[in-house]
Formats: sequence, C-alpha cells, structure tokens
Amino acid sequence: MTNDELAALEANDGFYAAFAARDIARMDALWARERPVTCIHPGWSVLIGRVAVMDSWRAILRDDTVRIECSSARAYVAGEMAYVVCFEGARAEAPNLVATNVFGREQGTWKLVHHHAGHLADVPTAPPSGPTN
Amino acid sequence: MTNDELAALEANDGFYAAFAARDIARMDALWARERPVTCIHPGWSVLIGRVAVMDSWRAILRDDTVRIECSSARAYVAGEMAYVVCFEGARAEAPNLVATNVFGREQGTWKLVHHHAGHLADVPTAPPSGPTN
Repeated sequence: MTNDELAALEANDGFYAAFAARDIARMDALWARERPVTCIHPGWSVLIGRVAVMDSWRAILRDDTVRIECSSARAYVAGEMAYVVCFEGARAEAPNLVATNVFGREQGTWKLVHHHAGHLADVPTAPPSGPTN
Repeated sequence: MTNDELAALEANDGFYAAFAARDIARMDALWARERPVTCIHPGWSVLIGRVAVMDSWRAILRDDTVRIECSSARAYVAGEMAYVVCFEGARAEAPNLVATNVFGREQGTWKLVHHHAGHLADVPTAPPSGPTN
C-alpha cells in the first residue's frame, strides 16, 4: 500500500471516528473548504454545498440512536483525488450499508469532498476480495 | 464549466448510452484498464476488479427489462480523477436511483474506475441545486 493510500484510509477512519463521537466540529474540519462538497445519505437525494452537507450532519449527529462503524475499507488514489469504498453498520461485523467516500487533497491533507452511503440488500458474508485491476 | 468537467460529463453520458444500448463491448471500453476498478450496484456488495465488474455488467445488460436514463449530472474534477453525481431511473423524469461515478484519466480520456448506484427513498421533486462549495 502506498503512503497516499494509507493517508486516505486514515482520513476515512477520522470520518468514522467523528461520526462515532458525534463531534460536529471534528466532522466539519474533515470536509474540504477549497473544493465543492456533495453528499448522499442512504435513501436521500444529493446534497450540494457545504451548508446543506453540514446541516445534514448536524441533524444526523444529534440523533443518538445512529451508530455507524466502518469495515473492509479500501483506498484508491489518483493524484489529487482518492476514494475509499467500505461497509458501514451499527456493528462492523454486520454491515447493512456500503459507502463511497471521495477525498480531495488540500494543503497536503485528504479532505472529504463526497460521501455516498446506500443500503445493502444482504449482510455480506465476507469482505470484498479480488484482484485490484 | 471547465473542459475537464465537460469531458467527464461526456464520459458519463457514454456510460449511460452503452447501458441503454446494452452494448457490453462499449461498456467494457469505458472502464479503466490501467487502474483498479470497483462497482456497487443497487443493494449489492462491492465488486472488485475488472473480471467481477464486467461479469456483473454482462448479466445486467442481458436483462432487457432494465432501462436506465441519467439526469441532473454534475461533474467534479481534481487532476487525474473526477466524479459525477447523477440520478438514474427508467425515465429521466422519475429517477429512483442516485449514482456516484468516479473516473480516472487514461491517456487523456476519462475512464470509469468506480460506479456506485443506490436507491432513493423518494422521487426527487427537483434537480439538486445549491452553491458548489
């Protein structure tokens, strides 16, 4: 794994840590400021722009019944953008969602530019595997 | 809109044209060869690698009940990677899915590296709008 991929996975971990801590300030700091941001929560339409995206996170993080853990994360990097694919669920062992998190580099740091989470029809019986190209 | 964004939207249109035409050779040509590819169909787990991804498209394109049109596409570019967010549905006017399509540049051309489509809980009453950052 390259240093860029490791850094993208660390940024992804930071996102789920902020989620778990329900820390809106930390969540806010993880999202890009120099690039457009977009977000698709499970079942939701597309949110465009920092105001709409952060409003959604404030509402979600206020709900203390929401618990999300990340599992099986994989990072893919090309220059100034990266994306991570991972499972999400109340318990990492039984994910019910799958997410694509896109990051852009700002001043050397991977910042979230897009989050797309959606429902899985079935709980995966194994982490995704296979060749990488 | 920048030329890069326009080109990413054209690549995105090409993807939905291949989908509509059920043209597996054209679909295959749209996906990256020099970069890893991944794909998340609605409700499915993550498919990793060209073999798994193309097998899935062969199965989907064989099913002549599947009709998908794209609407409200927006492109976001950073260097060698771009992503497009759009709605999908049997009719563009009544989308029931939302997609994130990630592209990587190969020899000057945007190629699909990742497709993630998921269900919308409700038909959007308007295209997404808002500031771009």
